[in-house]
Amino acid sequence: MKSIAILGSTGSIGRQAIEVVEHLGTLFKVRALSCQHNEKLLLEQALRLGVKEVAITCERVAKEARGAFSERGIRLHAGQSALVEMIGESAPDVVLNAIVGSAGLSASIAALENGATLALANKESLVAGGSLVISKCKERKANIVPIDSEHSAIFQCLRGEDKDGLKRIILTASGGPFRNYSLDDLRNVSVADALRHPTWSMGKKVTIDSATLMNKGLEVIEAHYLFEVGYESIDVIVHPQSVIHSMIEMVDGSFLAQMGAPDMRTPIQYALTYPRRETGISNLLSLEECGELTFEKVDVERFPCLAIAYRAGRAGKTYAAAMNAANEEAVQAFLDRKIGFLDIPRIVEGVLEKHVPLEGSTLDEILVAEEEARKLSREGIASARF
Amino acid sequence: MKSIAILGSTGSIGRQAIEVVEHLGTLFKVRALSCQHNEKLLLEQALRLGVKEVAITCERVAKEARGAFSERGIRLHAGQSALVEMIGESAPDVVLNAIVGSAGLSASIAALENGATLALANKESLVAGGSLVISKCKERKANIVPIDSEHSAIFQCLRGEDKDGLKRIILTASGGPFRNYSLDDLRNVSVADALRHPTWSMGKKVTIDSATLMNKGLEVIEAHYLFEVGYESIDVIVHPQSVIHSMIEMVDGSFLAQMGAPDMRTPIQYALTYPRRETGISNLLSLEECGELTFEKVDVERFPCLAIAYRAGRAGKTYAAAMNAANEEAVQAFLDRKIGFLDIPRIVEGVLEKHVPLEGSTLDEILVAEEEARKLSREGIASARF
Repeated sequence: MKSIAILGSTGSIGRQAIEVVEHLGTLFKVRALSCQHNEKLLLEQALRLGVKEVAITCERVAKEARGAFSERGIRLHAGQSALVEMIGESAPDVVLNAIVGSAGLSASIAALENGATLALANKESLVAGGSLVISKCKERKANIVPIDSEHSAIFQCLRGEDKDGLKRIILTASGGPFRNYSLDDLRNVSVADALRHPTWSMGKKVTIDSATLMNKGLEVIEAHYLFEVGYESIDVIVHPQSVIHSMIEMVDGSFLAQMGAPDMRTPIQYALTYPRRETGISNLLSLEECGELTFEKVDVERFPCLAIAYRAGRAGKTYAAAMNAANEEAVQAFLDRKIGFLDIPRIVEGVLEKHVPLEGSTLDEILVAEEEARKLSREGIASARF
Repeated sequence: MKSIAILGSTGSIGRQAIEVVEHLGTLFKVRALSCQHNEKLLLEQALRLGVKEVAITCERVAKEARGAFSERGIRLHAGQSALVEMIGESAPDVVLNAIVGSAGLSASIAALENGATLALANKESLVAGGSLVISKCKERKANIVPIDSEHSAIFQCLRGEDKDGLKRIILTASGGPFRNYSLDDLRNVSVADALRHPTWSMGKKVTIDSATLMNKGLEVIEAHYLFEVGYESIDVIVHPQSVIHSMIEMVDGSFLAQMGAPDMRTPIQYALTYPRRETGISNLLSLEECGELTFEKVDVERFPCLAIAYRAGRAGKTYAAAMNAANEEAVQAFLDRKIGFLDIPRIVEGVLEKHVPLEGSTLDEILVAEEEARKLSREGIASARF
């Protein structure tokens, strides 16, 4: 039996992770949970799973909730350092990081420093802190197993293959809800439109990122660090049906693909049971009923975020961290109806133009770069005429 | 540098194997070649590759060709035992068996007995002699690497996976040229129609087998022995575009697929370079240009050969050997315009009904069963009103 900490347990991935862990029965014992705001669900989860160690990252929420946890004998870590503290104290074998946004980076580093296996759904850990996370992973001889369906697919395809046989990684993109929109259409899309993802049911931030294709851009950078492959060998193809979750092309002309129903419980479970596979609880794919599978080129004119991400990734240093922070601010502003859909790439691009890069080899440098990018974004958001 | 014998070197797979071996440069030295009838091309190949050891299985052709080979210092093995002799004498590291039909079985066994790696394109070796071939392989701790594109795909997908994670094997079938024909249409198809395969360019026998779907039936039996998987865990799905060459479904809901252009040089090369991959010479797959990928159930009403093969496979003993022999006779009769297209399954089924099975654990028993089946087939062919 392995012990596990689930960070972001009240979110979409976190809740599905708990489902999977419960399904896996005696293979895992949940030792710690965390959330940002949803203290009610967190308490419910902790009681059901017999968890004695939780973290709430929002100070205000933590303060209000303290009594409810302590009277049930559950230790509550609060605030910014809560996750790092809780990982250190609970010392789980596996840390499943399902935090949304760059807030997940310090927790990923803490997990690796503690020698835990990092089951990673927080792509921003690698986008903002790729070099740092990977060098920490190597230093501690720890393992990172991806949970993003695309990276899980590639991870599965690469299993048993020699790296020198790999020609390129091909990330599939559903194309989001606006795949067939013109630039003019895109100018006027509403928040509700953008939240209507055609194939996957996910949290708000990642759904908007899917609509702008920034999500795919983040995944390109994530793949670069995770699989140690150059950007010239990472391609994106639009595959609206989301049946093929990603693939690799080998030097001999073979393609290897991982497919399945669009159900995050499959990659979550794989990350937990790897290198074994256990019977799953996911919806099953029926090829006879899934209709036709199609592929299209990405149009970076209409979806500039993908090109921006490639540029930021290639530029190295703290460019990707700055891009990600700017995107987080811009997406929140869009959700708050302060800016339009096409302002998102405009603001991110503006921030990157002004970004003064740091080396990015320490957490501090990354946090400084992110803070600067957020400040610049807020200026851009304030001046956006909407 | 490894030494290789290419059996059936003048056929479609054999010629492509030579192309691949020449492309691989110093990785392989061709030590032996064989053909049935095409002694001219065999001589040309032997001279170009500096091969000193050849076999011609047709006694008559061998007799006529003897002079041409001996005056160039090339040793010629002739007749039924030619392949076994040649494998013994040339002792290659790898035997690539691209013989068409059950004539390839004794050569496969000879290769394994000599401890060579068997790169297997002759599916009849496993259909007719599955138990024998697999037990010989284990006894000599030899390796079999499949060349059939479907089995190569599954072999590649299974790489690095634990067998207990496998739920089922899914062989893809193009559906052949008559995929959308009604039973009435099928009654009247001509040899020329049947030889027009929609996606793969292959030899005549396998092209007709693709039109009846017996080819897929043979592959089901081949997969059963090669991957040691029960028939209940081997499915066939029609995939007319032949882009996905086959796939596996795992217990957790993941599917793994191997894809590529329909080009046999990819699986041929993989069988030779495995476990490594080398840059290939195959046509490359362009997903953006391949159009839509679709999947359909197989209609065993219209294509009864597939159901016949499952039944023969499940029946064990010499049933599959008899079925294969009967099918070889029936296909030849169809090519000779002695019977109609729908007579093929009728004759095979008739033979199986009358078949008196032997255990099938020795080559002799298999040959006896085949001989009996051929005799019964010829009776059926003679009485077919066409």
